[in-house]
Amino acid sequence: MAKELTSRAENYSQWYNDLVTKADLAENSAVRGCMVIKPYGYSIWEKMQSALDKMFKDTGHSNAYFPLFIPKSFFSKEASHVEGFAKECAIVTHYRLKNDPNGKGVVVDSESKLEEELIVRPTSETIIWNTYKGWIQSYRDLPILVNQWANVVRWEMRTRLFLRTAEFLWQEGHTAHASEKEALEETDRMLRVYHEFAEKWLALPVIMGRKTANERFAGALDTFCIEGLMQDGKALQAGTSHFLGQNFAKAFDVKFQSQEGKLDYVWATSWGVSTRLIGALVMAHSDDNGLVLPPKLAPIQVVIVPIYKTDEERTKVSEAAEKIMKQLQDKNISVKFDNRDTHKPGFKFAEYELKGIPVRIAIGPKDLEKGTVELARRDTMQKSFVPQEGIEKYIEQLLVEIQQNIYQKALNYRSEHTFKVDTYDEFKKTLAEKGGFILAHWDGTSETEDKIKEETKATIRCIPFDQKQEEGKCIYSGKPSKGRVLFAVAY
Amino acid sequence: MAKELTSRAENYSQWYNDLVTKADLAENSAVRGCMVIKPYGYSIWEKMQSALDKMFKDTGHSNAYFPLFIPKSFFSKEASHVEGFAKECAIVTHYRLKNDPNGKGVVVDSESKLEEELIVRPTSETIIWNTYKGWIQSYRDLPILVNQWANVVRWEMRTRLFLRTAEFLWQEGHTAHASEKEALEETDRMLRVYHEFAEKWLALPVIMGRKTANERFAGALDTFCIEGLMQDGKALQAGTSHFLGQNFAKAFDVKFQSQEGKLDYVWATSWGVSTRLIGALVMAHSDDNGLVLPPKLAPIQVVIVPIYKTDEERTKVSEAAEKIMKQLQDKNISVKFDNRDTHKPGFKFAEYELKGIPVRIAIGPKDLEKGTVELARRDTMQKSFVPQEGIEKYIEQLLVEIQQNIYQKALNYRSEHTFKVDTYDEFKKTLAEKGGFILAHWDGTSETEDKIKEETKATIRCIPFDQKQEEGKCIYSGKPSKGRVLFAVAY
Repeated sequence: MAKELTSRAENYSQWYNDLVTKADLAENSAVRGCMVIKPYGYSIWEKMQSALDKMFKDTGHSNAYFPLFIPKSFFSKEASHVEGFAKECAIVTHYRLKNDPNGKGVVVDSESKLEEELIVRPTSETIIWNTYKGWIQSYRDLPILVNQWANVVRWEMRTRLFLRTAEFLWQEGHTAHASEKEALEETDRMLRVYHEFAEKWLALPVIMGRKTANERFAGALDTFCIEGLMQDGKALQAGTSHFLGQNFAKAFDVKFQSQEGKLDYVWATSWGVSTRLIGALVMAHSDDNGLVLPPKLAPIQVVIVPIYKTDEERTKVSEAAEKIMKQLQDKNISVKFDNRDTHKPGFKFAEYELKGIPVRIAIGPKDLEKGTVELARRDTMQKSFVPQEGIEKYIEQLLVEIQQNIYQKALNYRSEHTFKVDTYDEFKKTLAEKGGFILAHWDGTSETEDKIKEETKATIRCIPFDQKQEEGKCIYSGKPSKGRVLFAVAY
Repeated sequence: MAKELTSRAENYSQWYNDLVTKADLAENSAVRGCMVIKPYGYSIWEKMQSALDKMFKDTGHSNAYFPLFIPKSFFSKEASHVEGFAKECAIVTHYRLKNDPNGKGVVVDSESKLEEELIVRPTSETIIWNTYKGWIQSYRDLPILVNQWANVVRWEMRTRLFLRTAEFLWQEGHTAHASEKEALEETDRMLRVYHEFAEKWLALPVIMGRKTANERFAGALDTFCIEGLMQDGKALQAGTSHFLGQNFAKAFDVKFQSQEGKLDYVWATSWGVSTRLIGALVMAHSDDNGLVLPPKLAPIQVVIVPIYKTDEERTKVSEAAEKIMKQLQDKNISVKFDNRDTHKPGFKFAEYELKGIPVRIAIGPKDLEKGTVELARRDTMQKSFVPQEGIEKYIEQLLVEIQQNIYQKALNYRSEHTFKVDTYDEFKKTLAEKGGFILAHWDGTSETEDKIKEETKATIRCIPFDQKQEEGKCIYSGKPSKGRVLFAVAY
């Protein structure tokens, strides 16, 4: 089963597509660019949602739900916002079908044309700020700390499962504040929540930084992001947090009376992560045998496969397996006991390797004699024999170790693929031969950034928060620079 | 605050609208028929989701996600399905906006017309069965037990918050089976899950039964439902479970090889409940002072309001309040300690009455002396003094009692408003004077059902599962009948 995967070395892109479909994460649907998230893929998303939702609530946010549709006129109230999204949106123009007068199924009833077209939300700033107008009169109504879990649609021309799809699932936080300072603090707070989630849950080391003007969210004054590195040396933006200033408050006329009695526009932030993170998870950790899932996001953390020949052996092995399952469940470890007798152990082993179950236990008659089990780690593919006695504690600790090991491996990969270069030739050579993150000097202009992108496909992923003050010269223009920025070819 | 509510006696419909908006559950949006679910309303939905999701998983189901859009041609593959939904659907026809050549904002780019229009899902049978075609070859692939949490759109002309909105949130289960028997068992199992949820969580007694052909889901062979009675004597359908036979398998050509090696079409069910349940919750239990929430679905179960004059009193009272909060939290009771000093206790009392918090604790200097608190139950509005010592156990038990009491009250109401009638005159008189559920004989024809609906607005809510064999005559036609069916005017 796992053997049918294309290897990463052979064709990384094909490996990714193979893996996502063969491990039952997702598949393309009959609707252009829209995916079906299959139960196994969706259960990873549920784990992500649950962890993130708790982090949002622990930082004072509540969930709410706003309409799927945005009137076209709202959409165009913030100039750079509409500019950013107008070219890729699904537009509802009618509300009724009727029988085809020629007898061929159904056709759009032209009499049901809407007076004003509705845009299927690509993001919800406009409809939400139109709503906030009714919620905010005074500083006492602030801050508003709201998040929404929702589907959104962006009519992308080239799509890839999870990474870029016409419809995707995400969360979008939309907060309203009485001061610029508070809004900036919120933007930073949520970026750090994403950073923690990426590092602790996805086991993905990410670099926090600020986007350049070119890469900013349409309508933001400032966009901050976390950037991870995939195994093919390309960067992936894993989350963004936007400082929107008073742009949307001005577009929708949302003012508040301050404590001092002055009227002012409200300050805004928005921030989001999406099902794209499942793509990041796959690309960062998995190997030629299949998925490698960090235990904290694995829907099944331990699988137990019984080995037997006779019915008597089966009974005894099952008893022992069920006892272990119970012990693990008492530790809140999610376990599957695969006692199907329609499949052989070898088939099951390959299936669970493909699906990235962190720990596999095999237990047979010999193990019963010796009081052991055979335990296989998915991350290292190492096997060992472990006593049944106290196995729940052993595995509890092992899952922590696996989580750390997967993170460490990704961190090592990133360290080995982060390069400092000082000339444009070196830059192009490194990109072509090694890929990865490239730290280089830049003159701070959009023109230079555009030229570099045009010539090499690399973009500035961010100006890292931990950028060191360092005198240098822009690799492209030779103009002075005060610090290195992070370049990469990105998904 | 609470005083601003219209009373139920004065205008039930206005009372409902007032309550839903003033208790911060939801509000109308700028998009026709679409609502904004506010944080407090959404947190009730989260409680419902969490309970239902666990029940679905405990009965072997997994979640997945299918596209928002359905190609028009899929939609029309099942004849009665398209007939049922064609007149109320949002249709996407274009995918790009462009700047208005006349300089007035943006307009639909006519060059972006889709070859085939996309329908925003009103329900997902068609897109899901088109997907299942790829998942099912043999009996080994069955059953498929999948649920989806999603938004759907039905272009209703007359909308009301939660009860009937153009967009709403719901879950839709879609299962595939190897035999008619299995599919029928699943239909029944999920109806009983809904029944249990309604009675145990919503505290809403509901009647299980089968829909008549008139009221069946478009595309189903049989629809089963749970029906509750609201305080104005109208019925509300709170959940449906459909036996779809092989209709969708035939429409999408989904066949499987049986264990005996024969090719046959797959058997299907679908079942769903929606944010409408929040409307049911409000209408079934709330009163002229505001919401009455059953403790199991209340986002906040206990609120503590401190009473003090001096800073010293405030400190001491807060200490005691925080201790109680901690004790309750240790029992997994959700508590809010409202220590805002910007609002007076009386204001807070009214607010929490309006919002239906099951238990309110007030604690002041005199309580500290006596070692008591003042405790108010939202369901009965009774107040009593309770010792601080052991209060966590007292409240734990009290929440169970309140849940039961709310259920019992609704059950009593239903008993008092369920009538057996034997003539059409009596039927019309009862409907006009009392409303409620009416058990009456019916001749089994759609014609009679239509006539009664036309003349009285009452419909057959269901043929109850517990219908007794009883010879009688149809109240309308006088033709023979073998049992009573359940009539009511319905939401």
